[in-house]
Amino acid sequence: MKVRILVSLKPSVLDPQGQTVRNALHTLGYKSVKDVRQGKVFEVELEDVDRSEAEKIIPEIADKVLANPIIEKFTWEIIES
Amino acid sequence: MKVRILVSLKPSVLDPQGQTVRNALHTLGYKSVKDVRQGKVFEVELEDVDRSEAEKIIPEIADKVLANPIIEKFTWEIIES
Repeated sequence: MKVRILVSLKPSVLDPQGQTVRNALHTLGYKSVKDVRQGKVFEVELEDVDRSEAEKIIPEIADKVLANPIIEKFTWEIIES
Repeated sequence: MKVRILVSLKPSVLDPQGQTVRNALHTLGYKSVKDVRQGKVFEVELEDVDRSEAEKIIPEIADKVLANPIIEKFTWEIIES
């Protein structure tokens, strides 16, 4: 089973990386870009795990290892059964 | 309009960050994790742009600024019209 986990900064947290990308795009002429937020994506392959186990494991993994719950939030989805 | 762009390493490129995460998860007892690949996600807010313009701008932006086309690939989707 393949799972995609998206980790992004909470809306209240400043994102200097995203701001730098936005400024670079403006300099290149892409003025329609109003805002950029940067985050991380993890594609995790699980072996011998069914859907209900994945629903237990993935939030644990995301909370303990992949995201910093103080400043980040995560969403996840199964992309391959 | 809000667009999500996922940038990940091409399958042929080694991912030491992903390997480190996988090893950390194994150490914590998550043995069912077979593989982890790490990438970047960008949420881009576009102003006064319709769908066809977005379809022109986004691949340009991804190719020029967000991804390194030699080692990375990208996918994108509109998440808010």
